[in-house]
Amino acid sequence: VTCIRDLKVRGAPLIGIAAALSLAQLAEQGATVPEIVEAASRLREARPTAVNLMAAVDRVVLKHRQDLTAQGIVARAEALFAEDVALCSGIAKHGSSLLADGDHVLTHCNTGGLATVGSGTALAVIAEAARAGKCIHVFVDETRPLLQGARLTAWELSKLEVPFTLICDNMAAFLMKQGKVQKVLVGCDRIACNGDFANKVGTYGLAVAAKYHRIPFYVAAPWTTVDLNCRSGEEIPIEERGPEEVRAGQSPRECAVYNPAFDVTPAELVTGFIFDRGVVAPRLIQEFLAGLG
Amino acid sequence: VTCIRDLKVRGAPLIGIAAALSLAQLAEQGATVPEIVEAASRLREARPTAVNLMAAVDRVVLKHRQDLTAQGIVARAEALFAEDVALCSGIAKHGSSLLADGDHVLTHCNTGGLATVGSGTALAVIAEAARAGKCIHVFVDETRPLLQGARLTAWELSKLEVPFTLICDNMAAFLMKQGKVQKVLVGCDRIACNGDFANKVGTYGLAVAAKYHRIPFYVAAPWTTVDLNCRSGEEIPIEERGPEEVRAGQSPRECAVYNPAFDVTPAELVTGFIFDRGVVAPRLIQEFLAGLG
Repeated sequence: VTCIRDLKVRGAPLIGIAAALSLAQLAEQGATVPEIVEAASRLREARPTAVNLMAAVDRVVLKHRQDLTAQGIVARAEALFAEDVALCSGIAKHGSSLLADGDHVLTHCNTGGLATVGSGTALAVIAEAARAGKCIHVFVDETRPLLQGARLTAWELSKLEVPFTLICDNMAAFLMKQGKVQKVLVGCDRIACNGDFANKVGTYGLAVAAKYHRIPFYVAAPWTTVDLNCRSGEEIPIEERGPEEVRAGQSPRECAVYNPAFDVTPAELVTGFIFDRGVVAPRLIQEFLAGLG
Repeated sequence: VTCIRDLKVRGAPLIGIAAALSLAQLAEQGATVPEIVEAASRLREARPTAVNLMAAVDRVVLKHRQDLTAQGIVARAEALFAEDVALCSGIAKHGSSLLADGDHVLTHCNTGGLATVGSGTALAVIAEAARAGKCIHVFVDETRPLLQGARLTAWELSKLEVPFTLICDNMAAFLMKQGKVQKVLVGCDRIACNGDFANKVGTYGLAVAAKYHRIPFYVAAPWTTVDLNCRSGEEIPIEERGPEEVRAGQSPRECAVYNPAFDVTPAELVTGFIFDRGVVAPRLIQEFLAGLG
């Protein structure tokens, strides 16, 4: 729980699988059924915005109260683990065809192999396009306050040998104005039934700027990021984190800070969702979701 | 020159006056005319975007080649110094009537007494409205990469006892979406004849988001920030600074960085310019400028 809350494990899909595997480990260590259920309930509450955590805990433990043997829990956790790899591959395959040779793609936060078990979501799309021989340049938002872009995405792109340029979040709109960005590609933490979605704070501003500059804006996610219980973005709880993440060394001590970790972007600003099963326009999201049910 | 280039002195109006006073000091110390002209030329080039620096050097030295006595230079530098105080008061007076009791105002970078000799530009407007008894709450963009908002504006607002909340730049659009921002108010480094203007990077993205949310967007500046030699924003040179300002501790060493210190916002995104002589709508900027000539 502490690892998830303190972001030692982060990235919506990875959080879910980490929770599943820790429940499997607990079961193997001989925990009783009430202990497992209590651990599952606590894990479920560790972070409020990404739906993958709740979904994973439910799929591994809470929806299987009749089978909470160690064997059953471990099997379901391992299935979830394997599934993530396949989901990432599907996203990469469907998304990469959207990227053209020579594209400059802007991304936010971290959505690569460090955020999932597999190859990632938005970053997997970019990696797959590059692997297919397309020349892609990535603009990496540093992603304040915790700098997941500057720390994690920049590191992953270096390893993948995909060329990139690091920018401050507040430079993205100016890059768009200069015609330097052909596509915006982000991951996501929860998608509501109407296509509104939550992602790392800063995503909404990017979506507004992309709309203003008529730049396609894509959201890459496994279908497990959809929350069928959530009608619209207004129902997605937004995690607010502590002020110390934002305050600079020379800020006045105790100064008030607003630090939402996520924001919600309405469906009308999305060009397409890149799911593991294919690319879906926001106006068709309802039909796509009906197919999941 | 080093102080200006390394931002030990920063803020468009203050840079101009610091340059003027350092030329006055040089003249008083008995520098020859060629030495003064050379120093003036070097100061003029120290930073490319804010026009106040060039204008101040020209007014104190370069446009008065027939009178480069120490007495003349000192008198002109002192006049510039006194003028700044008056310009700030004028801006504060005209701008404060635009703010309503209860407004939440979003600002970017630092535009207070630390950026001018007088009380500032955008921040002077806020301070004046608060002094007049209006209840104003300020959202302070931290202003990456150099955190002028988190370091300087937050400190000034604390001293002024105006309530404020510090945010990351990438949270501004989400605040607007939630209806928490009634006005955006920024300073500026250079205004072209058509009303396009340059200001700290991030301003353009704020202007786009304000337009999308139909939130009034005001630019506060002394008339000396207008560059009559500059027809449009495209002619404003944008200073690019070093990558080390952006790279985080854990970013890959040597990773490529794009670090423009400023961006250019087109006139059509501006609701009004708050000048020391009054508030001017962008469609009337040409007539206002004709009055200056």
